[in-house]
Amino acid sequence: MPRTTVEVTCREEFSAALRLHNPELSEQENRRRYGICNNPNGHGHTFTLEVTVRGEPAPEDGMVVDFLQLESLIREEVLSEVDHKNLNRDVSFLTGTIPTTENLAVAFWERLEPRLKALEKCQLFRIRLFESTKNFVDYHGPTR
Amino acid sequence: MPRTTVEVTCREEFSAALRLHNPELSEQENRRRYGICNNPNGHGHTFTLEVTVRGEPAPEDGMVVDFLQLESLIREEVLSEVDHKNLNRDVSFLTGTIPTTENLAVAFWERLEPRLKALEKCQLFRIRLFESTKNFVDYHGPTR
Amino acid sequence: MPRTTVEVTCREEFSAALRLHNPELSEQENRRRYGICNNPNGHGHTFTLEVTVRGEPAPEDGMVVDFLQLESLIREEVLSEVDHKNLNRDVSFLTGTIPTTENLAVAFWERLEPRLKALEKCQLFRIRLFESTKNFVDYHGPTR
Amino acid sequence: MPRTTVEVTCREEFSAALRLHNPELSEQENRRRYGICNNPNGHGHTFTLEVTVRGEPAPEDGMVVDFLQLESLIREEVLSEVDHKNLNRDVSFLTGTIPTTENLAVAFWERLEPRLKALEKCQLFRIRLFESTKNFVDYHGPTR
Amino acid sequence: MPRTTVEVTCREEFSAALRLHNPELSEQENRRRYGICNNPNGHGHTFTLEVTVRGEPAPEDGMVVDFLQLESLIREEVLSEVDHKNLNRDVSFLTGTIPTTENLAVAFWERLEPRLKALEKCQLFRIRLFESTKNFVDYHGPTR
Amino acid sequence: MPRTTVEVTCREEFSAALRLHNPELSEQENRRRYGICNNPNGHGHTFTLEVTVRGEPAPEDGMVVDFLQLESLIREEVLSEVDHKNLNRDVSFLTGTIPTTENLAVAFWERLEPRLKALEKCQLFRIRLFESTKNFVDYHGPTR
Repeated sequence: MPRTTVEVTCREEFSAALRLHNPELSEQENRRRYGICNNPNGHGHTFTLEVTVRGEPAPEDGMVVDFLQLESLIREEVLSEVDHKNLNRDVSFLTGTIPTTENLAVAFWERLEPRLKALEKCQLFRIRLFESTKNFVDYHGPTR
Repeated sequence: MPRTTVEVTCREEFSAALRLHNPELSEQENRRRYGICNNPNGHGHTFTLEVTVRGEPAPEDGMVVDFLQLESLIREEVLSEVDHKNLNRDVSFLTGTIPTTENLAVAFWERLEPRLKALEKCQLFRIRLFESTKNFVDYHGPTR
Repeated sequence: MPRTTVEVTCREEFSAALRLHNPELSEQENRRRYGICNNPNGHGHTFTLEVTVRGEPAPEDGMVVDFLQLESLIREEVLSEVDHKNLNRDVSFLTGTIPTTENLAVAFWERLEPRLKALEKCQLFRIRLFESTKNFVDYHGPTR
Repeated sequence: MPRTTVEVTCREEFSAALRLHNPELSEQENRRRYGICNNPNGHGHTFTLEVTVRGEPAPEDGMVVDFLQLESLIREEVLSEVDHKNLNRDVSFLTGTIPTTENLAVAFWERLEPRLKALEKCQLFRIRLFESTKNFVDYHGPTR
Repeated sequence: MPRTTVEVTCREEFSAALRLHNPELSEQENRRRYGICNNPNGHGHTFTLEVTVRGEPAPEDGMVVDFLQLESLIREEVLSEVDHKNLNRDVSFLTGTIPTTENLAVAFWERLEPRLKALEKCQLFRIRLFESTKNFVDYHGPTR
Repeated sequence: MPRTTVEVTCREEFSAALRLHNPELSEQENRRRYGICNNPNGHGHTFTLEVTVRGEPAPEDGMVVDFLQLESLIREEVLSEVDHKNLNRDVSFLTGTIPTTENLAVAFWERLEPRLKALEKCQLFRIRLFESTKNFVDYHGPTR
């Protein structure tokens, strides 16, 4: 029998400082790779985070997941940790992670995926993260 | 031989009143599941609907489908029925459907899919429905 | 001495049902004036509300008003009353008001203006209210 | 071992004149197929181009591709050729191509794909091209 | 007695080809002043036009002007003339006008102002014209 | 004789780190006033800057100012100094300024105004600065 699978997306903003710098590389190599993003005193972004979950709308209520429940979970697991913070210094789950937009999307996936799996009615499908209106990344979880 | 498959999307807005309420559940259970969306006198949204079709651009005109033809079809099958209406009371094809954004996306698919199939040059690929700038759903049709 | 006057704007969304209908006019006259907005079972919008205040940044902190304080005040005075409500039936401060976007902007001004005046550091400057991406109104308060 | 595949998107605007017209079809047939887009003196668009590449973030720098490098490549291969140009007359790689949004997306893919393949760290994944806020197309490359 | 003056804005898009060129200046001077916008075969834009009118909401219906009536008037006086046209060659009311965004805004004002004045309930307040997401102009009518 | 005054706006983005902190106030008072914006390691924003100038379109070219010239001037005077920088530590013209969005708008005015005055064909009219999609400020210059 065909199944009705729907994706539900919730979009939030957060503001953070960051510096792209790998301490294992030389100063020169860091400047070469990261350019202006390697500025010693950092830069920052108003990030837009989209979290997409996938599931079947429950027959009795027509929802994959309550938007407000999804928003609460994002606030609890991600926004409360990163909003108005310095991503290099203030966020325990990012210790040792260079805060490129790519790495942030993967880190947010790893933080949200177990919580959503525990809900049992939907699974995490995609993390989309905008660092500006011009640039964004997508992550759909580990692939084989 | 490789094929050139392109997706074409048309975006429209409509405005509607709605209440999330399942008459088969108790008042208490409705409030628990739907929260503020269960308000007895309803709420409403300016919805943004994106309809995406997929096909090969015809060699003689370079189009999958004429944007204006696609827009007409969306107006005829969906917007004329739901725009400036009450989704619980005024829309015959939604009778018995709880108007969650998930259920609306599925209902719009079912309404548009046969019409697009009849065009023979493209098929419906995705319905995306925004209820606000923060929340939207995607439906790609029934899966097995 | 010249003064440094700055305007600060906070933008919020809310979702509401409404019907444009004046009970003192005939059914026919209501249909003529309001067209599809007179639908008996109502329609709805995801409104975007912008509240702008004007003042001088305080020398000791460089702010006209704290964005979070302004947001709280908007939530308290407006959003808590109108979000996920029916504007014709559920909102005491709109009783007897036909909920055109023009009238809503004026009503929100009247509700917010005394609260902002009491802050003593800024005054309400403008209410902007979008009912869709295509249509919005501005109100700058009563003029002589 | 699972792989971490991320998509990175860069968004740019360009402005161009164009006319939809197939010289192999009659005037009448051109008008029938293209309607107002067949206007003899042309029309134009501010196009928004999104280029998405896919790859694994390099362990030593956490990037699939440097956003600035991707932007340079788009400017070099596409924007320098089409921005503030007439797509029917001024662009050598579009000679003989009817500039529908579908055909433009395919032509931009063919122009960018070899350059990105040569980078060896990522591959072109999607071209998205908006001709207005209402209409856009997606192309993911040739399929079998 | 204080008056309640409200501004009402309607936003529309249109697509047009154009070339910035003054035939009374030398080729060299045209290139110096207009740069890439002087391309002999033209370029184009998807313009966003906002028309703002100002008036007092009528006590009996709470409207300054019906949004649909305003939209019709814009379509009739402006969009029907410029959408999917070449602004240098196809538009009689632009003959002899160099189609800079500044000049277009002024020309649209002159076309709409008498029609709105004739409505007697509101007056034209502002023309805003975007040529891209980055650039726009405002015109409030002739000043002394 | 009536004059034709038009406002021309150019919109740009930049990314910066910042901390709201007044060294002349106690730690406790800083936390009370600035809340999460006082985080010791800072936060950041992708700012959107709109610069509006006002003037009469020159009869011979129909422009108040060339958009590209205006953009260059903004890049030279503001973006080159603040983009991908720490606003508390890296920007000489912000030394001693608490980088609230209000203060930044005023500082950008003071930096741009003399350069625009020197052009002699237009004058600075407004600085608008967004720190997120929800919050922005406007500054029109010193008033008496």
